[in-house]
Amino acid sequence: MSRYVFDFSDGNKDLKDLLGGKGANLAEMTRMGLPVPPGFTITTDACREYLHTGTLPSGLLREVEDHLRLVEARLGKRLGDIHEPLLLSVRSGGPFSMPGMMETILDIGLNDTTVLALAARSGDERFAWDSYRRLIQMFGRTVYGVPAELFEAGPGDTAALRDLVATYQKVFAEYTGRDFPQSPREQLYGAITAVFQSWNADRAVLYRRQERIPHDLGTAVNVQAMVFGNRGPRSGSGVAFTRDPATGRRGAYGDYLPDAQGEDVVAGIRNTLTLADLSRIDPASHVKLLSIMEKLEQRFRDLCDIEFTIEDGDLWMLQTRVGKRTPAAAFVIAAQLVDEGTITLDEAISRVTGDQLAHLMFPAFDLDAAPEPLTTAVAASPGAASGAIVFDSTAATAADGPVILVRHETNPDDLPGMIAAQGILTSRGGKTSHAAVVARGMGKTCVCGAEQAVVDPVAETLTVGTTVLHAGDVISIDGTTGHVYAGAVPVRSSSVVRFFEGELSPLGDPLLAAVQRLMTHAGHVARLAVHANADTAADARRARRFGATGIGLCRTEHMFLGPRRELVEHLILGDHESALAELLPLQRDDFTALLREMDGLPVTIRLIDPPLHEFLPSLEDLTARVAAAQAVGRDPGLDGLLLAAVRRMHEQNPMLGLRGVRLGLVVPGLFAMQVRAVAEAAAARVAAGGDPRPEIMVPLVGTVQELDVVRAEALEVLSRVEGAPPIPIGTMIEVPRAALTAGDIAHAADFFSFGTNDLTQMTWGFSRDDVEGAFFGRYLDLGVFTVSPFESLDTTGVGELVRTAVERGRATRPDLPTGVCGEHGGDPASIHFFHDVGLDYVSCSPYRIPIARLEAGRAAVTPATQPNGAAFGPTSTS
Amino acid sequence: MSRYVFDFSDGNKDLKDLLGGKGANLAEMTRMGLPVPPGFTITTDACREYLHTGTLPSGLLREVEDHLRLVEARLGKRLGDIHEPLLLSVRSGGPFSMPGMMETILDIGLNDTTVLALAARSGDERFAWDSYRRLIQMFGRTVYGVPAELFEAGPGDTAALRDLVATYQKVFAEYTGRDFPQSPREQLYGAITAVFQSWNADRAVLYRRQERIPHDLGTAVNVQAMVFGNRGPRSGSGVAFTRDPATGRRGAYGDYLPDAQGEDVVAGIRNTLTLADLSRIDPASHVKLLSIMEKLEQRFRDLCDIEFTIEDGDLWMLQTRVGKRTPAAAFVIAAQLVDEGTITLDEAISRVTGDQLAHLMFPAFDLDAAPEPLTTAVAASPGAASGAIVFDSTAATAADGPVILVRHETNPDDLPGMIAAQGILTSRGGKTSHAAVVARGMGKTCVCGAEQAVVDPVAETLTVGTTVLHAGDVISIDGTTGHVYAGAVPVRSSSVVRFFEGELSPLGDPLLAAVQRLMTHAGHVARLAVHANADTAADARRARRFGATGIGLCRTEHMFLGPRRELVEHLILGDHESALAELLPLQRDDFTALLREMDGLPVTIRLIDPPLHEFLPSLEDLTARVAAAQAVGRDPGLDGLLLAAVRRMHEQNPMLGLRGVRLGLVVPGLFAMQVRAVAEAAAARVAAGGDPRPEIMVPLVGTVQELDVVRAEALEVLSRVEGAPPIPIGTMIEVPRAALTAGDIAHAADFFSFGTNDLTQMTWGFSRDDVEGAFFGRYLDLGVFTVSPFESLDTTGVGELVRTAVERGRATRPDLPTGVCGEHGGDPASIHFFHDVGLDYVSCSPYRIPIARLEAGRAAVTPATQPNGAAFGPTSTS
Repeated sequence: MSRYVFDFSDGNKDLKDLLGGKGANLAEMTRMGLPVPPGFTITTDACREYLHTGTLPSGLLREVEDHLRLVEARLGKRLGDIHEPLLLSVRSGGPFSMPGMMETILDIGLNDTTVLALAARSGDERFAWDSYRRLIQMFGRTVYGVPAELFEAGPGDTAALRDLVATYQKVFAEYTGRDFPQSPREQLYGAITAVFQSWNADRAVLYRRQERIPHDLGTAVNVQAMVFGNRGPRSGSGVAFTRDPATGRRGAYGDYLPDAQGEDVVAGIRNTLTLADLSRIDPASHVKLLSIMEKLEQRFRDLCDIEFTIEDGDLWMLQTRVGKRTPAAAFVIAAQLVDEGTITLDEAISRVTGDQLAHLMFPAFDLDAAPEPLTTAVAASPGAASGAIVFDSTAATAADGPVILVRHETNPDDLPGMIAAQGILTSRGGKTSHAAVVARGMGKTCVCGAEQAVVDPVAETLTVGTTVLHAGDVISIDGTTGHVYAGAVPVRSSSVVRFFEGELSPLGDPLLAAVQRLMTHAGHVARLAVHANADTAADARRARRFGATGIGLCRTEHMFLGPRRELVEHLILGDHESALAELLPLQRDDFTALLREMDGLPVTIRLIDPPLHEFLPSLEDLTARVAAAQAVGRDPGLDGLLLAAVRRMHEQNPMLGLRGVRLGLVVPGLFAMQVRAVAEAAAARVAAGGDPRPEIMVPLVGTVQELDVVRAEALEVLSRVEGAPPIPIGTMIEVPRAALTAGDIAHAADFFSFGTNDLTQMTWGFSRDDVEGAFFGRYLDLGVFTVSPFESLDTTGVGELVRTAVERGRATRPDLPTGVCGEHGGDPASIHFFHDVGLDYVSCSPYRIPIARLEAGRAAVTPATQPNGAAFGPTSTS
Repeated sequence: MSRYVFDFSDGNKDLKDLLGGKGANLAEMTRMGLPVPPGFTITTDACREYLHTGTLPSGLLREVEDHLRLVEARLGKRLGDIHEPLLLSVRSGGPFSMPGMMETILDIGLNDTTVLALAARSGDERFAWDSYRRLIQMFGRTVYGVPAELFEAGPGDTAALRDLVATYQKVFAEYTGRDFPQSPREQLYGAITAVFQSWNADRAVLYRRQERIPHDLGTAVNVQAMVFGNRGPRSGSGVAFTRDPATGRRGAYGDYLPDAQGEDVVAGIRNTLTLADLSRIDPASHVKLLSIMEKLEQRFRDLCDIEFTIEDGDLWMLQTRVGKRTPAAAFVIAAQLVDEGTITLDEAISRVTGDQLAHLMFPAFDLDAAPEPLTTAVAASPGAASGAIVFDSTAATAADGPVILVRHETNPDDLPGMIAAQGILTSRGGKTSHAAVVARGMGKTCVCGAEQAVVDPVAETLTVGTTVLHAGDVISIDGTTGHVYAGAVPVRSSSVVRFFEGELSPLGDPLLAAVQRLMTHAGHVARLAVHANADTAADARRARRFGATGIGLCRTEHMFLGPRRELVEHLILGDHESALAELLPLQRDDFTALLREMDGLPVTIRLIDPPLHEFLPSLEDLTARVAAAQAVGRDPGLDGLLLAAVRRMHEQNPMLGLRGVRLGLVVPGLFAMQVRAVAEAAAARVAAGGDPRPEIMVPLVGTVQELDVVRAEALEVLSRVEGAPPIPIGTMIEVPRAALTAGDIAHAADFFSFGTNDLTQMTWGFSRDDVEGAFFGRYLDLGVFTVSPFESLDTTGVGELVRTAVERGRATRPDLPTGVCGEHGGDPASIHFFHDVGLDYVSCSPYRIPIARLEAGRAAVTPATQPNGAAFGPTSTS
């Protein structure tokens, strides 16, 4: 028979899955001998059983009664006793903290009779009626769903409170069709059942989906004897942190409210006092509290937050947990705990995340200089942006200065405007709306669902309350907090970025010192190297300052843009050989500059990848130009020739067309020119005394035969360039077939680099450009995805191909170097996966380098995760 | 130590790998006691050793000398003997017959001395000098590469021949820089070495690549005593078949040339006689020959072809092998051999192929009514087509009647013309040219590389010899034979098709009787069922007549074309719900008609797959129309609205965009309308007393979550239609991720159907539309492909995904029905693969049904192939 109930003295902090976080920590404090009001926890097993069968598990009532008797015995009170009534609180508490669930009902046990006993025993009639009033209100709202607004506010004197209880009882009876239950046991079991049911409330389900919390965990229920902070001036309630959760500064930090219950502190009805004030009011309790907080830090080995109540001079601990903190505090506290000998450096890096570091690297508004926000909405894509308001895409693209695109909601028509704008503000939609999904994909600041803002695109006004803004007025949006401000707000650059850039010293700055220390340790323990995706010498320089130990992806096509487009037009339309001859020295100079910046480090150069027609004007533009010319009888001239070429080269699906290695096999001399440019650049660097380490990477290979041909041609070209160092020739693995046949391909490849962007597109069969706006929002809403597979690697599907390719490649060539150069190389969860499957490096954009370095270290000290089931196993068992 | 030489009396017909086909069969005849001139075979092992090391294997010379002495002893002659000189032939012979290799050198052993002995012994001086002339010519050409044209033609009288020998010796010496070797042993070893080397001649390598013959087999060499058919009227040479290779008719059939060597028969210099003539000229040899041919048929259990020589009244067998035959003969002979008790029906179906059946089903020119061909070129894509000549794509698309597009070569610009034309004729390029690859992809008749034809697109003339044809003149091209005819040639419909259609009876027609018999047996033994891809009642009817036992793919999008496009425009632009309401009864009628045709058989209906914008006019058309209107100041009207919609819905890569299940999840009510139409159609059929068996198939699923949502909605719709039978809901497996996660997907799928077209596109990362013309020809030339993966399944890459999905799907649901509905379902090699991986059915277009039925039977009686290595193993070991 299962055991469904644990007394607080039976559990401990490691039983979170069974007892929930709150219950496990109440048990831990009880075990530590701290003053915790007695009580017990009903397990998550009981909840799951209830959700499965729809009835409370058999045996549960008996266990509850047994434990209830224990509590009664300890306190000398009994539930429903008309002389010494025991009052109880019932609180939910799952393995993860989860807003949206029923949380607390206080004062269970009060009824028309026991309220009189409470008044008599406490000598405080007002307190007794106020407690009863609270019970009816909380019970009605959470157990019977009585709308909160039906319970009018207003504690007054005792008589008024007695009347209010009568009124509330009437409200309850009218709404529910039955009288307020006078049986304390009915109150207790009603509350327990309501907690169980709240697990499947809409908001709770939505929250779990967003936060990727499994739906089958269930919640525990904590039943505890009441203590009262509202028993007069010698009573009170407070919350406290063992360190400052905003900055990490050492020392207790908290709020205290005399003559109040915990919910009053949180509600912010009255101004709270500080802990220093408490030391004056009740020095004994203050000293005791500080001593307890120190013990808790030692036990939990981290910043704790606590809730406490003082009842008539007796201190009671109601809750503790490892406290939330800002990203800056996370770094500072982790470093402090190392200094204090509490944790190791390995543990320290496991307590900070790449996402926290990313937040520290975003530019942020200078909040000291910021006005009151106009409104606060969904923080959909982080960053800080100011600009003139525009109401449509055309205005956005036509604008000279920075603009913020303001829309009800966005659709694919708005894409050009979204690209042109500094940021996007919408009045509708949440984190999975079109605007949110696309903005995150672009790394663009976005605030969504500003419901208090009225957007009128015809009148071109944005109205919030009484403030009316017009097109051209400047607003500022904070995608990290969701704040919207009228006017420009000064932006403060990130001190962490300036530190990485070498502009700030960590001396005397606790945050920078902590970042430096943890990053250094991450570098020591990491197995994954971190390379950069960089196409220019400037990018390479920044990447190197940010700690990149190589370039994992240099895209050579970017080198064919701008004025060099004309040479590509020659290559396509005109004299093939002379165009290549003109491109050769330009490419050589590109590579020479890059190799100079990265002297002594590997530089992986990818041969040209996109279809050549991408360098020509668009079919649509040319069609319109030629049609317009012909309509007025004018010769379309060069446009006509270009249109013919673009039509000839037009592809239905350019992503699946003549690109990558296919170009190299079809366009004579193109790859050879690039290979020669690499070799000559390397030879020039050697001649200049440098240590160039170029590597050549062939894109889009699907079968070893393609690579065999390209490799033979490249080796022939390399053999003819004197003075060049040995240059490895490897391949991207970005086509599913390449992953499946990696055992063959490894025969012809000196290294593998996973192109997880294309691999994701082809494995799922969708193109990022076409789908993020078109249906990703819907998919996230439906729960088809928990996160976009372009943001974080789909470890089940795409990940299996990566794992398979590594295994088969290494079966052929045991020392095969492997890396990843898709955007997933900078994503924390993906980096852990790449560590687990044994890659040698990740490569990402320069600004993600520090994040990747940190996560590479964290991955090395964290047990391997089994994300979404084992790679070859099922992801669900629907 | 290896044994490199086998006397003919040591081998047998099962040693083809070691002795080559020719050597194994010479040995077999020797073992049978037939009159074979003595000789021996040098093994393929020796060849491989030579190719590997560049020298003849040690020990080979000694073995050759030993065997040579045996031959000498048997005949009482010696190589180089000045009284009784032994003359030898040296012939190549690999495991597969292979044009492009050096084949034969005769008369080895002749020199300035032995020629005199031969003259003396034979009493025929002219014969001796003619033989010597032949030796110098053959040896010079094949061992030293002396160009054939340097040896002027012309046997004359003896004196002239003696002069010719002197001339040839001079030619030889001038070209090679050395005298013609007088040593018979040098001649012998030179010839053996030349045979070995010819394995790697360009033409041989190319041929092997085209025919998918492995490059590492090597060739054997047969050394044999010469016999002479050119020793006067009692001598002669012939070739014969044991049955008519054109029709399969019983009875020996052959050509005989008196006083001639075998090469003279093949060269066709003189008109040959028939075997009936031989029975008059040399009745004894004739009787002996017929008796030998009967023995060979019994031994080889099949039609044999033979080469024989009669030397002075003595019959000698020089070669035999299982003979090539026409597709019609293949069927007739296989059935005959069953009748004769020689082979089983299982063997009979393994001796005919789906490709042969396909040839019998193409319409063909009525050759009795055909004129002489103008020219014969590469038969690039089978079929027969007549039409007016057009020289460019514009003319082709503008033409009213049938046209043949005539080009030097084609490129992507010609695609519209290729689609519009009945057939394509080019003067350049071979089987892998753009024209050939694209035409085969379209199933369009094509003749390529007609080098004798001069195409002048400016003058618009096609000139062959003295015939000049102009644009508009009619020509006919035969893509099965490569013939090109001036004028229209009557087309004869296929009797086999008319038989399948039920229009012809097999009674009294040996071909149709054979086809019927073998098809029936194939049906009995096949494990794979054969379903049809059919969207209309007419297609379904034909498919059923052709033997389909279900519809494996009904594409519902075809039902939205024509006048219904307007409803799709409403769906997109206008009133969504009313458009769906209007579509519902139309779809219901579509499905009712289909279910009526296929009463009692499964009909798998795929929910709509392509992006909705495909039903709107093209972006290019609309852009041009709107631009033209605006240029002259006219309001573009509806075109403007449509353009906005098309722009909004435009996709960079529609194949990877909003289609398939994604549409179903994004467009409310679309799938529900289709599901309801299916259920209502089925209910109507039940009410009418029918036995409807519809199945619903969801396209493009990549994760089980998509299918979960669609399935739940569909089940809800189905539950509301009264009177409908149970309707299974399954999924396509066409996205790589679906194959990888098939274990999950099977939880929500009642069946799997592999969409191998899309699966091939996504696994390789290329779209068929974009790549076949752009680079497949180049890939075939380079040997990257041996066959287009759209024609025949890539069993290594795509096949691994199919195999994986079947295994994982069945692990979840052991009785999961699986099939394939991509075009590979009608491809013979692919069908064998699908049989081997355990699918339940293949589905293909109606005209491929009989081919698939035959191959399904053949697969069941053929051992599993290991195409390109095991599915998970390497395809090469470069």
